[in-house]
Amino acid sequence: MQWWKQPAIHSSESPVERSSYLTEPDTNDGGSYDIVNDVSSPATGDYHSQQRSARHNWEMNYQEAAIYLQEGENNDKFFTHPKNAKALAAYLFVHNHLFYLMELITALLLLLLSLCEAPAVPILRLGIYIHATLELFALVVVVFELSMKMRWMGFYTYIRHKRTMVKTCVLLVQFVEAIVVLVRQTSHVRITRALRCIFLVDCRYCGAVRRNLRQIFQSLPPFIDILLLLLFFMVIFAILGFYLFSSNHSDPYFNTLENSLVNLFVLLTTSNFPDVMMPSYSRNPWSCVFFIVYLSIELYFIMNLLLAVVFDTFSDIEKRKFKSLLLHKRTAIQHAYRLLVSKQRPSGISFKQFEGLMRFYKPRMCARERYLTFKALNQNNTALVSLKDFYNFYEVVGLKWKAKRNREHWFDDLPRTAFLIFKGINILVKSRAFQYAMYTVVAVNGIWILIQTFMLQDGNFFPRDVPWSYIVFLTIYGVELLLKTTGLGPIEYLSSGWNLFDFSVTLFAFLGLLALAFNMEPFYFIVVLRPLQLLRLFKLKKRYRNVLDTMFELFPRMASLGLTLLIFYYSFAIVGMEFFSGVVYPNCCNTSTVADAYRWVNHTVGNKTVVEEGYYYLNNFDNILNSFVTLFELTVVNDWYIIMEGVTSQTSHWSRLYFMIFYIVTMVVMTIIVAFILEAFVFRMNYTRKNQGSEEDNGIVLEKEISKEEMASVIELYRRNYAASETAPLQKVIAQMDKYEQTSMLFLGRRSRTKSDLSMKMYEEEIQEWYEEHSRKEEYPWQDVFPSGSHMLSSGLRQRSQTVI
Amino acid sequence: MQWWKQPAIHSSESPVERSSYLTEPDTNDGGSYDIVNDVSSPATGDYHSQQRSARHNWEMNYQEAAIYLQEGENNDKFFTHPKNAKALAAYLFVHNHLFYLMELITALLLLLLSLCEAPAVPILRLGIYIHATLELFALVVVVFELSMKMRWMGFYTYIRHKRTMVKTCVLLVQFVEAIVVLVRQTSHVRITRALRCIFLVDCRYCGAVRRNLRQIFQSLPPFIDILLLLLFFMVIFAILGFYLFSSNHSDPYFNTLENSLVNLFVLLTTSNFPDVMMPSYSRNPWSCVFFIVYLSIELYFIMNLLLAVVFDTFSDIEKRKFKSLLLHKRTAIQHAYRLLVSKQRPSGISFKQFEGLMRFYKPRMCARERYLTFKALNQNNTALVSLKDFYNFYEVVGLKWKAKRNREHWFDDLPRTAFLIFKGINILVKSRAFQYAMYTVVAVNGIWILIQTFMLQDGNFFPRDVPWSYIVFLTIYGVELLLKTTGLGPIEYLSSGWNLFDFSVTLFAFLGLLALAFNMEPFYFIVVLRPLQLLRLFKLKKRYRNVLDTMFELFPRMASLGLTLLIFYYSFAIVGMEFFSGVVYPNCCNTSTVADAYRWVNHTVGNKTVVEEGYYYLNNFDNILNSFVTLFELTVVNDWYIIMEGVTSQTSHWSRLYFMIFYIVTMVVMTIIVAFILEAFVFRMNYTRKNQGSEEDNGIVLEKEISKEEMASVIELYRRNYAASETAPLQKVIAQMDKYEQTSMLFLGRRSRTKSDLSMKMYEEEIQEWYEEHSRKEEYPWQDVFPSGSHMLSSGLRQRSQTVI
Repeated sequence: MQWWKQPAIHSSESPVERSSYLTEPDTNDGGSYDIVNDVSSPATGDYHSQQRSARHNWEMNYQEAAIYLQEGENNDKFFTHPKNAKALAAYLFVHNHLFYLMELITALLLLLLSLCEAPAVPILRLGIYIHATLELFALVVVVFELSMKMRWMGFYTYIRHKRTMVKTCVLLVQFVEAIVVLVRQTSHVRITRALRCIFLVDCRYCGAVRRNLRQIFQSLPPFIDILLLLLFFMVIFAILGFYLFSSNHSDPYFNTLENSLVNLFVLLTTSNFPDVMMPSYSRNPWSCVFFIVYLSIELYFIMNLLLAVVFDTFSDIEKRKFKSLLLHKRTAIQHAYRLLVSKQRPSGISFKQFEGLMRFYKPRMCARERYLTFKALNQNNTALVSLKDFYNFYEVVGLKWKAKRNREHWFDDLPRTAFLIFKGINILVKSRAFQYAMYTVVAVNGIWILIQTFMLQDGNFFPRDVPWSYIVFLTIYGVELLLKTTGLGPIEYLSSGWNLFDFSVTLFAFLGLLALAFNMEPFYFIVVLRPLQLLRLFKLKKRYRNVLDTMFELFPRMASLGLTLLIFYYSFAIVGMEFFSGVVYPNCCNTSTVADAYRWVNHTVGNKTVVEEGYYYLNNFDNILNSFVTLFELTVVNDWYIIMEGVTSQTSHWSRLYFMIFYIVTMVVMTIIVAFILEAFVFRMNYTRKNQGSEEDNGIVLEKEISKEEMASVIELYRRNYAASETAPLQKVIAQMDKYEQTSMLFLGRRSRTKSDLSMKMYEEEIQEWYEEHSRKEEYPWQDVFPSGSHMLSSGLRQRSQTVI
Repeated sequence: MQWWKQPAIHSSESPVERSSYLTEPDTNDGGSYDIVNDVSSPATGDYHSQQRSARHNWEMNYQEAAIYLQEGENNDKFFTHPKNAKALAAYLFVHNHLFYLMELITALLLLLLSLCEAPAVPILRLGIYIHATLELFALVVVVFELSMKMRWMGFYTYIRHKRTMVKTCVLLVQFVEAIVVLVRQTSHVRITRALRCIFLVDCRYCGAVRRNLRQIFQSLPPFIDILLLLLFFMVIFAILGFYLFSSNHSDPYFNTLENSLVNLFVLLTTSNFPDVMMPSYSRNPWSCVFFIVYLSIELYFIMNLLLAVVFDTFSDIEKRKFKSLLLHKRTAIQHAYRLLVSKQRPSGISFKQFEGLMRFYKPRMCARERYLTFKALNQNNTALVSLKDFYNFYEVVGLKWKAKRNREHWFDDLPRTAFLIFKGINILVKSRAFQYAMYTVVAVNGIWILIQTFMLQDGNFFPRDVPWSYIVFLTIYGVELLLKTTGLGPIEYLSSGWNLFDFSVTLFAFLGLLALAFNMEPFYFIVVLRPLQLLRLFKLKKRYRNVLDTMFELFPRMASLGLTLLIFYYSFAIVGMEFFSGVVYPNCCNTSTVADAYRWVNHTVGNKTVVEEGYYYLNNFDNILNSFVTLFELTVVNDWYIIMEGVTSQTSHWSRLYFMIFYIVTMVVMTIIVAFILEAFVFRMNYTRKNQGSEEDNGIVLEKEISKEEMASVIELYRRNYAASETAPLQKVIAQMDKYEQTSMLFLGRRSRTKSDLSMKMYEEEIQEWYEEHSRKEEYPWQDVFPSGSHMLSSGLRQRSQTVI
């Protein structure tokens, strides 16, 4: 018996477990099974009201199950799970892209305000009234957001949630300060603005940043230990250096213990080397031993040890994080499963229930995809999805389903002559000869550009008439593009990342040609991007493909790490602006050892005016954009001591603390970035090594076949329960089957491979152990999570629940 | 039956396999078993001559087995195994610490010659006659060494051995050049001197350096791939930068494509940042985007990728190397085993045979230790060591055996009162309170020194009278040292590395005190070492102990990596001296952009003489010591472009190639050093994590008990076969047993844990697979190694073999 022939309607069933948002008290708890089973039983009186209530029950369960699954996906802890109907309403309000967007925009507004506040970017300067009012407005929005969150979580959970509490405190401080600014009509020293980043960090969309921050904080303890070792050696060497070199009066670096310490700190970043050594070296050549030993110990040994320790901690944390996420998802699935199973069929979830769930979980998924997802979950092709099958929910739900095409090429339906032409082009563009010919063209083009640029005399970069070589190469690329698009079909052509890259580079080159031809000077920079074509050559070698693929895989994580760094930058920029804005200017630091770097002299030698520019006065904290550039220069650490000494000479020597702390913070973040790249790369390499024999790695693909009868029964189900419009995509499938005279149709589900998939394969054996351990620990995990399960059922506000849902 | 009661004499046995150095043809190959078994058989005629010949056979076998084991230990390939008696003599001559030392000294002499040659260190300058003669002498010694090696290996093997061939070629070139120098009486451009390092690399004692070089070369291919990626992006950005910034005439960095490339290369090392950005940044603030993007891609992404790729390759190579070493040792043991097994007892090696082997393998091991090693190998306490047991040879042979002391403390034998006093001291120094009190003293001392140094006005560092704090703290340390030595006994006290450290630091402090008290100024630097005491505080935390232990474990490898780096330095120093010696001097580079750094002006401002020193002229290649310092500065990479530009402005712009190649080479070596530290550290961490439950890691310890009867039978064996003097240590053991009235005695074998032991435990499971694979591949590995086994037996020079051994 094929399972889909069973009547798919069981709205008279009732769930095993009831949603915590249900308001009607479950009076006949013990006997409910029998009563519902026998729907016409007189005990319940009105059959229709019974059925309506059951349907309402189910809707509630679907929604709560969807929420559990969402929590599992987002790694939201279950103790923030909405506990009653009121909380549910708030939850739905808060978990919503519009709300997320509002959060993000408010946070960005608050951050961007520092462009216009006191030491503002000149062209963006705003009056105090205006920016303070804007700030107040944004803060009020944040208050609104927080109050909605409190409504969702309830007061006690809200208090327990650390991040939200910190946010509330910051909010309060900001509020008070914004009002003070408005009242006094002048900006005071507002270092607390540095805390504004917390609004951004708390955004739903910045989950990756939060994860990074957590990982940074988790890596801190071992990091600090090694840092202390580093500082300790620094102190010992500072004392040594002071004793050894302070008798040399031409040595400004070791004349006091403080100088000695500061200069050894700078030496750790090597940015004053060899200058710091020179005065003593010129006196006694053997003094270089001191510096060589110091650098060998500190820079080449302990700094690498630091990286090793962080890398080690990092890989460990990555694994533990993967484990906890995996188990969290599993628990979420268990919760959802309990809510979806009906009393009549406690062994699994039927398609009806699954459909109801997906209506809440992914409202925009079409009926065909829902059904395919259900089939993909349902591994042994029965009517019900068991818990074991349901555990694959997250892996399956992300698949994008497409009918497997019967046609090999896009031109298969064309008339014979056209077909042959296109087939010829297809064979041509897929041939090795064509590919290598193109590589040769690219290489020649590259060498051409190089020689051309080398031969250029300065001045006449952009000739009035377009050079013929430009046109020739562009024509070749254009023809290639045309051939590939026609030979492969536009969809297949653009589905490869490399082709997309070719396409955009060629497009840019064409735009550059237009810019040259029509003399549009501001667009000349496009011409300059031509050498990027050369990147195509890297397809040739397997290692490069690997590296570039890894690069693309790493990109989202790298971007989030970059954002994390930017958040630190922001805080430091605000502090820097408050303390150091306007302190450096041309010829400012004549008393310091780095005066030369700030000198700006306009003097006459003979009859020529010579401008001596030290330029370093440009590395200032005069507005937030300048601060960011200055902080980037500090991150690169070369010559950062010039900036530090310049500022120090204009303020107090405590300013050095700011620069040193910044160095240590960026060192932490940078070390973690390095550790992350190392970890990701080594992980991928090990993965490749482990799966050497298996197929090329091109994402997860699943194949499912659907027969006509099956489709019809699904349509029947939809027709009975929902609006006719929803069956449209299903009808289309049937129409297609009719057209090609098939009795069944193949669908392919596809998604790209994520890190989690790789980890699943890498830790295959351990995962089983984790599962066993997990299930031993909590035989009934839902009881652990809600120790007061029975209480919740009655905790809802009865009179309002009806209107909310 | 206890096995040692068997008569230990079986000199009438004959080995299963005969040494390849044996000269008498084995005429009765098929029936030899029976004949030898029945020693009195009339077929052989003279019984005594038979026995003498058998003993001679055995001696030969022992020696060849010992050579196999040595080859296994040193990872010498078996194709260099001496094949006949003449080769054996050469082998024994060459494998000998005196010969090794000669090799080393010759190599060092050749290397050190560059201190005295042409651009010599002033005080070491020698006449051309003298140093050329010295060189010729050293080269002649090398010729002698090589001829001995050729004698050992035979001509064909010699030709096949790549390293030796390269060495021979270099030797030839050096010889010709040395003679040319002597004839012309002037040094020509001798860049080939850079190849002198090969003599050092080829030394037996520099095995670790050879391994490093091999590992560097093996890591090169992936390294070069990523390097090309790096250079490729550099070229693209150079073209971009040239187009964008060359219109700015105040920007000297991008005015030609060559400058653009060079400056981006330097920017990769960040050493001209932010200066390289400043001219364009001052014109248009948005130009910083170019530099930020470049640095993000090149420095923060691809450079880290480089590290990741090297790290990955490195860990892979480490594992493969461990595997091949392990299997090589195993094969060596199999070879040796075959030579030691007798025809009468083919299932194992008896002590007599083992003793014979050890006489060649470790001549200085005493009889007691030999016997204990045999017992340790012999795991199931039978008379014979089977092949399976014999596989542990290398693990066991390194153990140092000591009788397990019956006394807990050194003072147990003292009279009651003294015992109580010492016992009290012992308890005191082992108490936590005492330890923490000492930590407090050290900490207070550290803070004291810091404050004292901070309060110092310059000038009066070393007061005429010794400060009281110095005396107080030194007294405390002295008392601690005294208490510990008396409480623990000097041997136990000094067996801990930490105590040794305490001891030496306290000794230094005492010497410093003497220096102060007797006003010996040249020794004042000892006073300065006092803060090293603070290192003791790091015992407090487990992580530091771990880190410092790892540091000590890594030290030999680090030293060999450092030596490898020095060898590269040497080559570059020679090349640098040949091309750039004397090109930079004060005020030399006025035409370059870095003129300031070389300026040395002595001018008068008002009525004060101001010396403006650029100092960079000190970073030159004027002699080999200066070159080394300059190269170290180039390694640190900060401001290296100043050195490069200075030299370039005085020579040609091709000089930049030298500096860039040096940068890339040091980058390779440094990346490998980082990868090595990472690998070693992560490996150790994983090991610790894997063995979390097990005991503290304090080396390998084995316990063996020897009874009196057993000892007596061993003595009997020695008395019959060897001189009476050899039984002395055994007799002493018996005497000791008698003294304490024991019937048996416990011995402890101890050695420190090596990386190989850790690897053995880490790869436990895989090792079994390797073994199986190995034994499948070569059922009889000795047949593979010597395909012409039968030939060798007759290849010896018969008439000489007798005299050689």
